[in-house]
Amino acid sequence: MKHIEILDTTLRDGAQGEGISFSLEDKLNITQKLAKLGLDFIEAGNPASNPKDMEFFQRLRELELGKTEVVAFGATRRKLIRAEEDENCRSLLAAGTRWISVFGKSWDLHVRDVLRTTLEENLEMIRDTVAFFRENGRQVIFDAEHFFDGWKQNRDYALAAVKAAAEAGAARICLCDTNGASFPDEIAAIVGEVTKILSVPVGIHTHNDVGCAVANAMAAVEAGASHVQGTYLGFGERCGNACLATLIANLQAKRGYDCIPADRLCRLTKTARYIAEVTNLLIPANTPYVGRSAFAHKGGMHVDGIYKNSFSFEHISPEAVGNTRHVLLSEFAGRTAIANRVAELDASVTRDSQVTEELIEKLKLLEYEGYAFESAGASFEIFALKHLGRYTPAFSLEYFKIISEEPAVNVARSCCAIIKVRVGDTVEMTSAEGEGPVHAMDVAMRKALEVFYPALSEVRLIDYKVRVMESRRATAAKVRVLIESRDAGSVWTTVGLSADIIDASWQALRDSMEYKLIKDGII
Amino acid sequence: MKHIEILDTTLRDGAQGEGISFSLEDKLNITQKLAKLGLDFIEAGNPASNPKDMEFFQRLRELELGKTEVVAFGATRRKLIRAEEDENCRSLLAAGTRWISVFGKSWDLHVRDVLRTTLEENLEMIRDTVAFFRENGRQVIFDAEHFFDGWKQNRDYALAAVKAAAEAGAARICLCDTNGASFPDEIAAIVGEVTKILSVPVGIHTHNDVGCAVANAMAAVEAGASHVQGTYLGFGERCGNACLATLIANLQAKRGYDCIPADRLCRLTKTARYIAEVTNLLIPANTPYVGRSAFAHKGGMHVDGIYKNSFSFEHISPEAVGNTRHVLLSEFAGRTAIANRVAELDASVTRDSQVTEELIEKLKLLEYEGYAFESAGASFEIFALKHLGRYTPAFSLEYFKIISEEPAVNVARSCCAIIKVRVGDTVEMTSAEGEGPVHAMDVAMRKALEVFYPALSEVRLIDYKVRVMESRRATAAKVRVLIESRDAGSVWTTVGLSADIIDASWQALRDSMEYKLIKDGII
Repeated sequence: MKHIEILDTTLRDGAQGEGISFSLEDKLNITQKLAKLGLDFIEAGNPASNPKDMEFFQRLRELELGKTEVVAFGATRRKLIRAEEDENCRSLLAAGTRWISVFGKSWDLHVRDVLRTTLEENLEMIRDTVAFFRENGRQVIFDAEHFFDGWKQNRDYALAAVKAAAEAGAARICLCDTNGASFPDEIAAIVGEVTKILSVPVGIHTHNDVGCAVANAMAAVEAGASHVQGTYLGFGERCGNACLATLIANLQAKRGYDCIPADRLCRLTKTARYIAEVTNLLIPANTPYVGRSAFAHKGGMHVDGIYKNSFSFEHISPEAVGNTRHVLLSEFAGRTAIANRVAELDASVTRDSQVTEELIEKLKLLEYEGYAFESAGASFEIFALKHLGRYTPAFSLEYFKIISEEPAVNVARSCCAIIKVRVGDTVEMTSAEGEGPVHAMDVAMRKALEVFYPALSEVRLIDYKVRVMESRRATAAKVRVLIESRDAGSVWTTVGLSADIIDASWQALRDSMEYKLIKDGII
Repeated sequence: MKHIEILDTTLRDGAQGEGISFSLEDKLNITQKLAKLGLDFIEAGNPASNPKDMEFFQRLRELELGKTEVVAFGATRRKLIRAEEDENCRSLLAAGTRWISVFGKSWDLHVRDVLRTTLEENLEMIRDTVAFFRENGRQVIFDAEHFFDGWKQNRDYALAAVKAAAEAGAARICLCDTNGASFPDEIAAIVGEVTKILSVPVGIHTHNDVGCAVANAMAAVEAGASHVQGTYLGFGERCGNACLATLIANLQAKRGYDCIPADRLCRLTKTARYIAEVTNLLIPANTPYVGRSAFAHKGGMHVDGIYKNSFSFEHISPEAVGNTRHVLLSEFAGRTAIANRVAELDASVTRDSQVTEELIEKLKLLEYEGYAFESAGASFEIFALKHLGRYTPAFSLEYFKIISEEPAVNVARSCCAIIKVRVGDTVEMTSAEGEGPVHAMDVAMRKALEVFYPALSEVRLIDYKVRVMESRRATAAKVRVLIESRDAGSVWTTVGLSADIIDASWQALRDSMEYKLIKDGII
């Protein structure tokens, strides 16, 4: 099986997409997740472009990433200076990665109109930059920007550019369809010729401006390319990059190439969901293999066919890529997983217990509504305890009232909350101010509950995430709130769902406090 | 220029997509819009499947559709009866269209496992059904379901099926990749062989399950197909159908085929927006040619290149397909982008104006705080107008008060908002309930402002996004709200940022209303 190297550039080219920006923590988290999938390369940013990226490369050294190489990305040196005098080149070196991606011009139009230098000086910039990194012990992936457009207009010059990089010691020559308007027949023909000429492994980097990014990358591989660049979910500038989730499945499951370890193909969907969550973008439902609708069946005849022979309307088993035929079923809703989880709470529960069956049915319904128990294990545990009849509420809410106003009396505390809770026969009523309604409610709630349960003062909320579920309904859409909490010993996550963000936040806050008390054996 | 027939099946196969359903009026409206584009065929539904479709075919007769033929769609007759005895065939005839699409099996696995009949009886079903419609004066498009999977497993039988249809008088034989898992090289090879064997014009119908629907249709055309089926925006079952907006532009603008009258290519984007609006789905922003981001530029170097030579980073002029270039303002964007943007508001501003410098400094500061002007062009415009001293507020807020409570008197409207606004010397005070605080504020605000500006009733909020900026501060973290609004003619996005989600939403809502009034020249 021929190995095809995969380079994910979600964190670099993907960040060029509209509405996408990553925090430092986001970038570290995504890097770890992609490394777990067993990718060869992760292109993670341009250390010269902003300080956040430089800090990323420093923090990177703390991570265990297996065989995955993280790659810093930057341009060839500026014209008419030496690479070692170029600040950007020096930043790239300072990033400290073993591999560096260097992009350079291979289309004469760009050299003249955008760089505004001579054709020869551009070749010199390529040679000099690649050689500089080689001399400093780095491996170089040379990205030939606009290679296909360049080839079509001035084939000799496009070739001269990649030859310059290869001769200077680049370890990979990646041909980029930067404007994204090539078709598979063109890509196949050109890559076929280039691989015959160059002795360095050739890569392919495609964009989706004519809807052919995936097909173009496939065509390049069939024509001899052995290195494929894309973004995991196809996010990227304009119409996006080639979607790696699709490409990995196509190459490995359909065409017999080896891209990632075989036992990790079933992680494709899980990884997609994780990246979408961190990016705060939805995976387009119709994304091949990993989208919510990729194995959804609606036509009566299709559904019937599926039951008679799943192969009749499914080109691959959804499980092979970690997806499911029924949209509502999350991984977590697998019978064994649920039984195992519940057995931790009640040892008498097994895979075949009636209660397991019932829980699965209820979970499906809740997930269909938009709850996400996959990431909110504490809420799942409370939900299961309730279902097992082993749950005693630690408190009950009599009511809360929250008042937001503008202009506010106290601008930094523009909301106030009134809360009344009951524990047994005792009620406690209090109020608090906060920055926004959820903060005010959080402060008031703790103030009231700590009277009964001093241990709650150990709880810190460390993350609060809001996700609009059906954004088409705009301000009346359902929102899902995830809250991450911790105390000295552990971290837990809870979930709430409602059309009202305050109600959703209340559910997640309530579960967080309850979980602390259950966990510590206080109730 | 070779003519390629286009058949749009948004109303039939598109309606199989998750979350898509059309009312009778929707179907009539979309039919008229697609006919204006000059398509050859619109496949509009299965009159046997529901009464709404039958009524549609009756109402259709009132419409003026030019040369466009509307096609009724249905299956071959059931096994072991005659076509004239088959209710579905009779309904198809009763639809009264000149053209009928008949789909039949060409994969032996389906005949055995799904139809559960003999291979010979299936061929007889095809012959008999096609002949029946021919005898009744209809033209038939025969859709060979699963043709490519069938060919791969039993080539002789797949061929026998399409030959049966051709011999019985079908006017077109459309080869369907129903499971959507073929690649362009396979499609090209198979279509090439079939077009040599059949004398009837051959069509192609592709799905996107391996991300190659568009490339597959292109490959089929290059191999000799002269009829292309798809859905206008790619909506459809599972991963969707081939996107016709992309295919028409590709075939006509890139490959020199004739699909629609040349002067209508510039209607592609407008038609896409119309269909998305009727379908109540968003056009995925990264859709080639017609998506909002299709011509969006973010990277500073790309933006700079675009201004030096638009051809350098754009494969086609956005105007050619009725779309517009969109420069995203962000940490990546440079001076040129901002100057050009501001010059649209004030022609005296240039790259070197003092005001450009000041705006860049202010923008940097705001983006550092967490604002995102890259996608919120409307808020940027208001911000720039303010800075240029050319902004007159349309209204001012006296105050709002929002009360959330639980348990709520009305569970579905758990919040109420009171708002008081001023326009000149007049104040208007009102209140409204909503699902959550933001919804309540949105409703109350419009109610108050429409008294002064009736045009605001045209504004619809189509997207609402929340992003927690520094999630580690948990419920007191800053949130950024992005609101996308539209009216009949345009779509705009506004942004708000605050530790208080209500305040952030207020900012974005306020900007949205202001922008509408500025855009329409009302203030």
